[in-house]
Amino acid sequence: MSLIPPRTSRSPVALEDCRLARAIELIGDRWSLLILRSAMYGVRRFDDFQEELGCPRTVLSGRLKALETSGLLTKKAYRESGKRARSEYVLSQMGGDLLPVLIALTQWGDAWLAGGDPAPISFTAGPEKRPAHVAFVDAGGQEVSPAQVRVKLRRG
Amino acid sequence: MSLIPPRTSRSPVALEDCRLARAIELIGDRWSLLILRSAMYGVRRFDDFQEELGCPRTVLSGRLKALETSGLLTKKAYRESGKRARSEYVLSQMGGDLLPVLIALTQWGDAWLAGGDPAPISFTAGPEKRPAHVAFVDAGGQEVSPAQVRVKLRRG
Repeated sequence: MSLIPPRTSRSPVALEDCRLARAIELIGDRWSLLILRSAMYGVRRFDDFQEELGCPRTVLSGRLKALETSGLLTKKAYRESGKRARSEYVLSQMGGDLLPVLIALTQWGDAWLAGGDPAPISFTAGPEKRPAHVAFVDAGGQEVSPAQVRVKLRRG
Repeated sequence: MSLIPPRTSRSPVALEDCRLARAIELIGDRWSLLILRSAMYGVRRFDDFQEELGCPRTVLSGRLKALETSGLLTKKAYRESGKRARSEYVLSQMGGDLLPVLIALTQWGDAWLAGGDPAPISFTAGPEKRPAHVAFVDAGGQEVSPAQVRVKLRRG
């Protein structure tokens, strides 16, 4: 996939059949993405999301509910001593599978939005803690350049 | 990074220092993401975006302008014979660098939102057109499991 694809008047997949478009419908808004970011780091409780994000409470409540309904967050009850039961929102497997998306977007921000400042956070893999990043890989698990990547349409 | 990180009340990086949060501010809305999706496939012209997305024209105009101002799209003039000059919007290098993010999100949609239908589109790498996907890799360019990935905070 070259960085500048040839001009077309239409994408190869219609919007209603496109899983990218479906994914965007589910998580493509600012608050949902910021909630998923916090959840990825371990934030679980309503008041903690609210304090971190500064999101209006009614909006936060609606977004958490929607993310739970979509299956990205799992609601669990907890109770602090002497208080009433409340809910925690934890990433489901479905939500956790967004990790490569969120970390690829973090890398993109590091590359393009940092203004030369060093990244406050980076990622490592394995017991030796070698630097890790998100990239294209071939079927053998070896990194390939984005310039080598092409779209393949399913026939039929 | 385990799929269920330990509970915390705060993310390790404050929102104002987080490049993921900054990236979300720039592209984290439904129309901007759908425009970038179409642009990734080669759609360039206002009327083509409008027809594909069904986006209100004033909204589309505003989003294209914002994406141009942010540096993700480059505006270029074109003229069809006998018509006045108009503008095309082409992914810049900055916009093209979102490809791993968009394709990782496509894969996620294929995995979680497809309801068992085969993917209408897939990706290949290199002249042999081997299947390609987005994944975590270590510094040696070898794929690693998401379960092996850890966050590392910069000291200082």
